Formats: sequence, C-alpha cells, structure tokens
Amino acid sequence: MTTIASVRSDYYLVPLDVVLSDSTHGSIPHFELVTVRVTDSDGAEGIGYTYAVNSGGAAFKTLIDHYLTPVVLGADVDASERVWQDMWWAVHYSGRGGHATSAISAVDIAIWDLRAKRAGQPLWRYFGGFDPKVPVYAGGIDLDFSVEELLEQADRFQELGFRAIKMKVGRASLREDVERVRRMREHLGDDFPLMVDANMKWSVDQAVRAAQALAEFNLLWIEEPTIPDDVAGHVRVVREGRTPVATGENMHTLYEFSNLIVAGGLTYPEPDVTNCGGMTVFRKIAAVAEAHNLPVTSHGVHDLTVHLLAAAPNRTFMEAHGFSLDRYIAHPMAVVDGFTMAPERPGHGIELDWSALEQHRS
Amino acid sequence: MTTIASVRSDYYLVPLDVVLSDSTHGSIPHFELVTVRVTDSDGAEGIGYTYAVNSGGAAFKTLIDHYLTPVVLGADVDASERVWQDMWWAVHYSGRGGHATSAISAVDIAIWDLRAKRAGQPLWRYFGGFDPKVPVYAGGIDLDFSVEELLEQADRFQELGFRAIKMKVGRASLREDVERVRRMREHLGDDFPLMVDANMKWSVDQAVRAAQALAEFNLLWIEEPTIPDDVAGHVRVVREGRTPVATGENMHTLYEFSNLIVAGGLTYPEPDVTNCGGMTVFRKIAAVAEAHNLPVTSHGVHDLTVHLLAAAPNRTFMEAHGFSLDRYIAHPMAVVDGFTMAPERPGHGIELDWSALEQHRS
Ligand SMILES: [Mg+2]
Ligand SMILES: [Mg+2]
Repeated sequence: MTTIASVRSDYYLVPLDVVLSDSTHGSIPHFELVTVRVTDSDGAEGIGYTYAVNSGGAAFKTLIDHYLTPVVLGADVDASERVWQDMWWAVHYSGRGGHATSAISAVDIAIWDLRAKRAGQPLWRYFGGFDPKVPVYAGGIDLDFSVEELLEQADRFQELGFRAIKMKVGRASLREDVERVRRMREHLGDDFPLMVDANMKWSVDQAVRAAQALAEFNLLWIEEPTIPDDVAGHVRVVREGRTPVATGENMHTLYEFSNLIVAGGLTYPEPDVTNCGGMTVFRKIAAVAEAHNLPVTSHGVHDLTVHLLAAAPNRTFMEAHGFSLDRYIAHPMAVVDGFTMAPERPGHGIELDWSALEQHRS
Repeated sequence: MTTIASVRSDYYLVPLDVVLSDSTHGSIPHFELVTVRVTDSDGAEGIGYTYAVNSGGAAFKTLIDHYLTPVVLGADVDASERVWQDMWWAVHYSGRGGHATSAISAVDIAIWDLRAKRAGQPLWRYFGGFDPKVPVYAGGIDLDFSVEELLEQADRFQELGFRAIKMKVGRASLREDVERVRRMREHLGDDFPLMVDANMKWSVDQAVRAAQALAEFNLLWIEEPTIPDDVAGHVRVVREGRTPVATGENMHTLYEFSNLIVAGGLTYPEPDVTNCGGMTVFRKIAAVAEAHNLPVTSHGVHDLTVHLLAAAPNRTFMEAHGFSLDRYIAHPMAVVDGFTMAPERPGHGIELDWSALEQHRS
C-alpha cells in the first residue's frame, strides 16, 4: 500500500495587479493563498491550494497543520474518500463548513492530484473525461468601474478570447445597476452571454425587484442575489424574478447545495472547489445538480476547475476568476473563441513557481 | 465614547477527570479551551471563552488574533451588535459558521460580560431577567459505561442535586440502547425527566426506528438523532418518531436554527453560546424559538448559559455539561433540588483561575 508520507502547507498574501471591489468585500488589494504539498511513500507529490477574499488564510494553515495533517499521514493514498471522511469528522464539532472545509479542500485537491499523477492521467480523464473543451466566461470585479471602464474591460475580455462576461451589480441604487447593464447589453449585442453578480447585497424583496427590473436584458443568471442562508428567499427570487439564479461561492457543504437545490432555490449551482470540500465534494455537487436536471458552473480557480467541468456532462460556463495565479504557474489557461481545453498533463498539471511566491509568504 | 482597548486570547488543552466517550468523538481525554480578555478604554475587563470537543482551539485563536482583533479594537464597547456584524463579515467568505462562529462567540461573550459589568448588573438582569431559578439536567457522557456504571452515575447525579438526566445512546445495536434506557427508566421511576443523546449516530431511518422503539419510555427528548444538515430528515424523525427532538450543538448560525425550526424538524432548540455566535446570537435563537411556540434549552458552558436561560421566558432545562470548568472558577454552579440560581455578581460573574489554567497552555 502506498501511503501519504508528508504534508506541507504554506501561506501567502498574493497582491492583485489592480485593487478590485465588489458589493460585499470593499476594496481587495490581495488574496489569501494556502498551498498544500503532499508526498507519498514512493516519493510522488501532489499539489493543492485554497484561497480566500479578505481573511482566513492563517486559519486554513492552522487547521491543516494542527488537525488535518495527523489524520492524513500514513493513510492509503488511493483512499481519498476515506481520508475525506476522516478529515471531516476530525474537525466536525468545531467546523462543519467554513474554514474547515477550505482546509479540507486544499488537502483533498493535493491528494487527487497525486492520485491522477500516479495513474499518469490528467484529472479530467481520471474522473471519466466527458469533453475537454470547456466554455469559459470572464468574471469582472468591477462594481466601482465607470461605465466607460466597464465597456473597455468588456472589449479587453473579448480580445483575450472570452465570449461570455459577468459584471457586478449592487450599486447604491437599482436605477444605476439597470443603466449599467443596459449599456453593457447594448455594447455586447442581444445574444452575448451576460451574467450579473450581486455578492449578497440585496434583501429578498430587493433581489426580486432587481431581477424583475433586469429581466428585459436576457441575463444568463443573477449571482448571489442574497445571503446563501436564506433558502426560502432564494425560492422566491427564482420563481418571481424571471431570471435564473446562481450561487455557491459562500456555500461550504454538499448539504447546503442539496438543500437549496431540492427546495428549488437555485438554477446554476456554482461550487468553488477550494471551499466546498475539494474535488471529492465538487463532483458530488455536480452529481446532485445533474440528478435535478440542472447545469453546474464554478467559482474561482479555473486552473483546477477545468478538470471537474471537463468531466461533468451537465457542465456549463466556467468562471475565469479575477484572482488569477497566471504569473505563478507554468501553463496559464488559454482561451480561444470562448473555450479552453483541459490540459493533458498528469494530475491537474499546475506547476507553481515557488520562488516567485516566496516574496508573498505570510 | 468608551472603546475596546485590548483583546487577548489564550489557548489551553484542559484534561478531563475521566476519559469520556460518545458515539461520534470516540474517547475524549481533554477539551480545547480558548479564552478571550477584552479591556476597554476605562480599564474594565470582560472575559469570554469558547471550547471544542477534540480539535479546533488553535484555529479559534488564529481567527481571533489575525482577523477579529483588528475589527474589534477601537470599537464602541456598547455597540455589541455592530461589532458582531463587523466580525461576521470580516470572516464571512472563509467562514460563515464553523470555526469562525466559535471565535466570534468568545469575543462576543467577553464584550457582553464587559457591558454588564459596566452597568453593574449580572448578565441575566442586563438581558431583562425573567427568572433566576433555572432547571438543570446532568448530561452523562457515558456511551461506554456498563449498565451498573450508568445507574451508579444516576445516583451520583441525584446526590449532587440533579432531578433530570441525559444519557448517551447509539450503541452497536438498537436492542442494547433500548435495554439500557429501560434499566435507567426503571431505576429513576416513571416521571423522572430523562433524555437521550445519539450524537448524530443514526441515519434518518435508523433514527425513526430508534425513536419509535424508545417511545414507551416517555423520554423528554432524543438529541441529535442524525446529522444537523438533514432538514427533511429531522422533520421525519419529529413526525414519525413519537418523541421530541433536540439539536443544536453542531449548528453554528441563526439561520441554521431558523431553517430547521421553520421546517418543523426541531422540538428543543439547543444552542451552545460558545459556538452559535455568542450571547448576541443565542438570544436571537431563543426569540425565534419563542416565536414558534418552542422551548429553548442549551448545550455546554452552564456557567455562561444560566444567564441566557434566566432571561428567556421559554427556557426549559439547562444542560450541566461534562466539560466542567469547576476546578478553574471561583464560584462553580450549585444545584439544589433540580435547580440552579443565576448569580448576582456583575457580568457573568465567572472568575477564572489563570494560574491553574497556565499548566494546560497549548
Ligand atoms: Mg460571485
Ligand atoms: Mg449532545
């Protein structure tokens, strides 16, 4: 039996090229990144990571070092489901979601990377490859942009190969949001896939009215119209808003997704593999979505997520996230005419530039 | 304006007198304790703490030191609701429950202690005192006890003044559980308040069958029959099990309680003030319970919880928890004929023996 021989975690504050902003997190100068390197008793290595918007990395590292590493060391490297369950229950009383799930995710991703590398396959094939050609969209973090900056950004996204764009909403007045979306829709044309993201800004009643006011613009979805805790509220937005609803980046368990889906409060489940529980849980969420005749999209970390969506028959657009690791990885994602191809390198195929990251160690 | 001038956290592993066990956490030689000391600009001090069963304390401390302290410093000491919201959103993306809520709880408790001390009132009066005489029950952590040990423990509890007892269930076979409960019921008499706690051991179907098999024993409640994530499952247990259902020690947000209560899946809400979000959230959960015509009970930390239940008109039995701080506090709870009296000392009135705790610093 090949076992897990070492677990190493590192914590970085990675600066963003431009200070970004949305309706919940204010200005965002950097993001928090925690990497995990797992080696097995044959000397092979797997890499995982998780990240967060404005806090949390130090807690992820504490959880990994203090509570998850002892559970993982010595485990059968191929028993990823057993290891996941052992990690979950090791931090369940104090955790059950939240920081615990992000920490578990980073370790789970590293283990899956290791398993696929040992099998000599890219992860998406290891998962039972459906289609390596994955549609992507560009997610702007642009709430404070002027309309001119918004449209310029849209042009830039299209020059980069994107054929679908998401913009932020949740300005001080709904009238402003409507005007900004109108200008984007006019700029992009009637059929260009356009989504909006409110980052939980609205009450349910505001969300319903916003969705109705935006219905004429043929949006692909409205994302996070309100807090993820409000299941009944989401059902109202879906039924009364006349626009599909996406959410998931703030949902940290399989059960949260399932409960919202079963209630009818979610059109586009949008898990983030780094905070929903890793590859193990993302795949289960995709399966629950499929069982409910729903597509699955994604949040964040496109370099990882492309493998999951390339293996999911119900996959739709993947988010190309604004917190990019492009300058720290050997093969950044390429986008051509709206699609990216899942890589053929073994595992997830991400090689991190550890020395470039070193200057951002926290 | 009096502001918060300092926040200090400390992390201890507190050994238990006896290694305890339940159906989820295996053997428990110690518990994790994180204390918080908050001082204000007038030099007054408030004390809070949180704890966990088998992991988590290091992460609580990391969260408090890295992410909550910067939010709290300089805040108006009386703006506890504003501070709570600021803490919640500071760790929301990575948190939203779990470890984040325990860390927030410890700080929130310290702030309320400080506020009540400044007002010269015990917390239960500061909260609008309902009745200082609170019924208590003894919670045995006794799944692995023999029947003889169980009955001896029950005698001991009664000698200590308890007139209500909870025992663990979730043995390998339901037949064993039924036999153990039968023996306890015979020993205690028909009308003695007796509860059982399954610590999430069962599937929903097992829970329904267990509840039905135990219905003849007139149990006050069955606690944590299954995982707290399963809302629909709880509704089944409540409706089909013919025994009331308690849960809450693994629920970490107001919304989780509300969603389960509204669905009809909970008879006895049982928040733990150290992991539900502190005094601020416990009181809201009690209000939601009251609004749904339900009682409110509690989990853990009876020295803190007595203030909350003494102020809640819908309060029922308070748990006297097995993870006792008795040997580290100046005035441990006294139980007389099934009741305890909320203290008249200002704040929560708990004076911790810091030098005795020092040997357990982690
Ligand atoms: Mg979003
Ligand atoms: Mg319990």
